[in-house]
Amino acid sequence: MSYSVDKSSVFSFDLETGISKDRPPTKRYLSNLRGLFADNAALEVLIKKEDSVVYEFYEMGIPENPGDLAFGTSICYPGKVGSEYFMTKGHFHTILDTAEVYLCIKGRGLILMESPEGDCSYEVIAPGKMAYVPKRYAHRSVNIGKEPFIQFFTFRADAGHDYGTIETRGFRKLVVEQNGDFAVIDNPKWKA
Amino acid sequence: MSYSVDKSSVFSFDLETGISKDRPPTKRYLSNLRGLFADNAALEVLIKKEDSVVYEFYEMGIPENPGDLAFGTSICYPGKVGSEYFMTKGHFHTILDTAEVYLCIKGRGLILMESPEGDCSYEVIAPGKMAYVPKRYAHRSVNIGKEPFIQFFTFRADAGHDYGTIETRGFRKLVVEQNGDFAVIDNPKWKA
Repeated sequence: MSYSVDKSSVFSFDLETGISKDRPPTKRYLSNLRGLFADNAALEVLIKKEDSVVYEFYEMGIPENPGDLAFGTSICYPGKVGSEYFMTKGHFHTILDTAEVYLCIKGRGLILMESPEGDCSYEVIAPGKMAYVPKRYAHRSVNIGKEPFIQFFTFRADAGHDYGTIETRGFRKLVVEQNGDFAVIDNPKWKA
Repeated sequence: MSYSVDKSSVFSFDLETGISKDRPPTKRYLSNLRGLFADNAALEVLIKKEDSVVYEFYEMGIPENPGDLAFGTSICYPGKVGSEYFMTKGHFHTILDTAEVYLCIKGRGLILMESPEGDCSYEVIAPGKMAYVPKRYAHRSVNIGKEPFIQFFTFRADAGHDYGTIETRGFRKLVVEQNGDFAVIDNPKWKA
């Protein structure tokens, strides 16, 4: 599909699966997430068995202008590495003062957030629930359910992605299964 | 519900009805749309019978900062005034260089658009289809189906709304029923 961001366009998403036929997906496999889960040994065991897709997203490639909006769907699959739920890498926006909206379409998930100063929060969302990620907060999607966790997202097209900070330091919190439910606990490996 | 836009929040929408319990709706009745439909006489006949709701929307009242995003749902009901389908007032953004995204959740509708220079376009959307309204384009939602036309929308929170230009001049095009389907025709009353 070709389009100009200065002309009207239509994009298609399957509201059951989150899949768009307008763009190829970006897929993140277990092996792309080395160093992000707390239990490295458990991750390597899983990769050896099958390097499965943890999440994928469809992003429409809108040019990075402050007046435009980037949008798409993300699909985080159910699963765990040790006791830690499947999750996205997570990122800050390069333009820190830009928010993001996540509308849950299917499944049950958690948006984990933290500010550079260490203010941590999370929101649990299910179909019809929308999490507002405030300006300045890093954010990660975590599937705490048994089905794919599917979201429609929008952010200012010039916001940019800083993945490096999280890849280097991690989030201050982990989302793990405890007694059959999720728990948000301190990340013992977190480094300032 | 009270919240700060600088902290994370969750908002709820019913994905079947578009209704949010987090905010009161803004409702536009037939009598609020006097002067916008081509057939004034047909409108007055309808109002006399029952001044029904043409559309309503749930907007979350996000402060008008360039780094924030305004969002919500809009519900345009099925109906016609003469041969012209029920529609929203339509507006330009006050900050003209800001886009908007409309994700259709239910029903079938049309987004009518035009630039200040007179470039006109439209997109037909149904569930899972998303219309991208480019920067600088006035836009109006039109219900060309038989069910409520329900959308989730997002735009930069400081974009602002200019309703006056459309209220004064109208759109250059009308969306009417012709032979059982919609047709986009010139607006005979349009004034430069």
